[in-house]
Amino acid sequence: MIDGNATSAQIRVELKAAVEEMQATLGVTPGLAVILIGERRDSATYVRAKKKACAEVGIASFGFDYPATITQEELIAKIDELNADPLVNGILVQLPIPPHIDEAAVLHRILPEKDVDGLHPLNVAQLANTKTHAPGRSAWSFDTIGFHVSCTPQGCIELLDRYGVSMEGKNAVVLGRSNIVGIPVALLLMQRNATVTIAHSRTKDIEKVVGAADIVVAAVGRAEMVKGSWLKPGAVVIDVGINSVDDATKKTGYRLVGDVHFESCKEVASQITPVPGGVGPMTIAMLLRNTVNGTRRSALAKAALPPPPNA
Amino acid sequence: MIDGNATSAQIRVELKAAVEEMQATLGVTPGLAVILIGERRDSATYVRAKKKACAEVGIASFGFDYPATITQEELIAKIDELNADPLVNGILVQLPIPPHIDEAAVLHRILPEKDVDGLHPLNVAQLANTKTHAPGRSAWSFDTIGFHVSCTPQGCIELLDRYGVSMEGKNAVVLGRSNIVGIPVALLLMQRNATVTIAHSRTKDIEKVVGAADIVVAAVGRAEMVKGSWLKPGAVVIDVGINSVDDATKKTGYRLVGDVHFESCKEVASQITPVPGGVGPMTIAMLLRNTVNGTRRSALAKAALPPPPNA
Repeated sequence: MIDGNATSAQIRVELKAAVEEMQATLGVTPGLAVILIGERRDSATYVRAKKKACAEVGIASFGFDYPATITQEELIAKIDELNADPLVNGILVQLPIPPHIDEAAVLHRILPEKDVDGLHPLNVAQLANTKTHAPGRSAWSFDTIGFHVSCTPQGCIELLDRYGVSMEGKNAVVLGRSNIVGIPVALLLMQRNATVTIAHSRTKDIEKVVGAADIVVAAVGRAEMVKGSWLKPGAVVIDVGINSVDDATKKTGYRLVGDVHFESCKEVASQITPVPGGVGPMTIAMLLRNTVNGTRRSALAKAALPPPPNA
Repeated sequence: MIDGNATSAQIRVELKAAVEEMQATLGVTPGLAVILIGERRDSATYVRAKKKACAEVGIASFGFDYPATITQEELIAKIDELNADPLVNGILVQLPIPPHIDEAAVLHRILPEKDVDGLHPLNVAQLANTKTHAPGRSAWSFDTIGFHVSCTPQGCIELLDRYGVSMEGKNAVVLGRSNIVGIPVALLLMQRNATVTIAHSRTKDIEKVVGAADIVVAAVGRAEMVKGSWLKPGAVVIDVGINSVDDATKKTGYRLVGDVHFESCKEVASQITPVPGGVGPMTIAMLLRNTVNGTRRSALAKAALPPPPNA
């Protein structure tokens, strides 16, 4: 069992120490601005969890909650202000945002170095750039890479790393080709020298494709689609899906399940993430890490500059 | 046999008509600036071929040949000037450039809308963006897509299209994961609903991986690596490689071969590109098309603007 709760707790401990060291040696405290628009309960829950995690590791969080009627101009003006604010090292706009606002215009406005969600095209393009992933440059370790890798894909790789799963030369199958998870996780697995296949709704004989995989990453958003009988014995399974299904035995009337049928797959897989408690908590841990890394890179870059002429 | 010479000739005829129509209806002539640095003979040959192809379809070409001693600042200043020039719709810097110049700094300086080689990160990121490839938006047809797709990958897909090879639901294997060909062609095949596997030097049992493919795109730079015995009977083979091998029977002492062993593969494949005369000529045709498309988009955008206040 790959335990995302325990792993993310361990990462938060490491990040807390990194923040303290950064305060002592560089005199800076990381700051994350979190913008929430409208009344979606799920979004409010995610934002609360992110702020709580910031507090736990010593990152300052700045919350900006707007009604769904905010205009695109107002939102852009706030982002410009946060881009210019030296106390803000990361800017996160909780998605989705209301349809009258052009999501791309907003996300592209965030400075790439403050785009801790890794969604700016300059960060996305780096994923497709083999040259930035030269040997010895790991996207996962602190400070060694000059751009932000989006959090959920980064969390998947981090789980594999921390559980000792080598990707080198392995057959990896990614189910799903979304901008947010499928494509970036496929590129990251490829950078780690896996042979990667991207499968999706138009893939024929998907069971056979999955059956050839040493590593399966499921990110399609279809409840319990992957069955144990599909898997190669000993495969490692990372389940990114979060789907709610009716469950009369629960007080809420539903329960959360992944894209993987856990009960049958755990009998065949060598290692597997549960839902909840797998990839989910890692997403927030990687957001914190991006914020800490970005802060350190920015502080080191400033320290390397000559003092201004009148200083 | 997939004939890249004949196909690119046909595309040049279509582009010539498109240029004439654009001149008649929009009053603009596409212009391509080509920057050549240093004395490399291969680069000079490519640049000559590009200028010749421009002339054939009615694109104005502006050549800037610099010695290898040009500084990065001088090159950037020229790019800024070309970015601002309304007669220049496309800017191409012939690669490779001398090592004292930061290639990324130069390529990123070109305005994305004039980056007809498709190498600016804003163009690269669009390849990984599923949303820009919604049904009905084809990257290949004129004017329907707002960014530049790099020329060699685009040429591979164009050959498949023009030879009636459906990618929908097919197993496609891309050999090689370079920034320039492997990764973009894999993303383009995925956008066309192929199930895509990216194989590379670390892939285990590569013959078996290739043997499962309905479509093989070889872009690894290893002479005649793919043998006929590797292929599934009826597979379609696109060979991007251009390698020179010793050949005492030739006056030059060498001949050009692809990454595919043509003689054995042509017996097993249903369709196959030769080298030379396959993907090669398509690269220039796609450069011309990007220039024409960019010019039309720019002219249409200007026509849609209100006239300036004093007009």
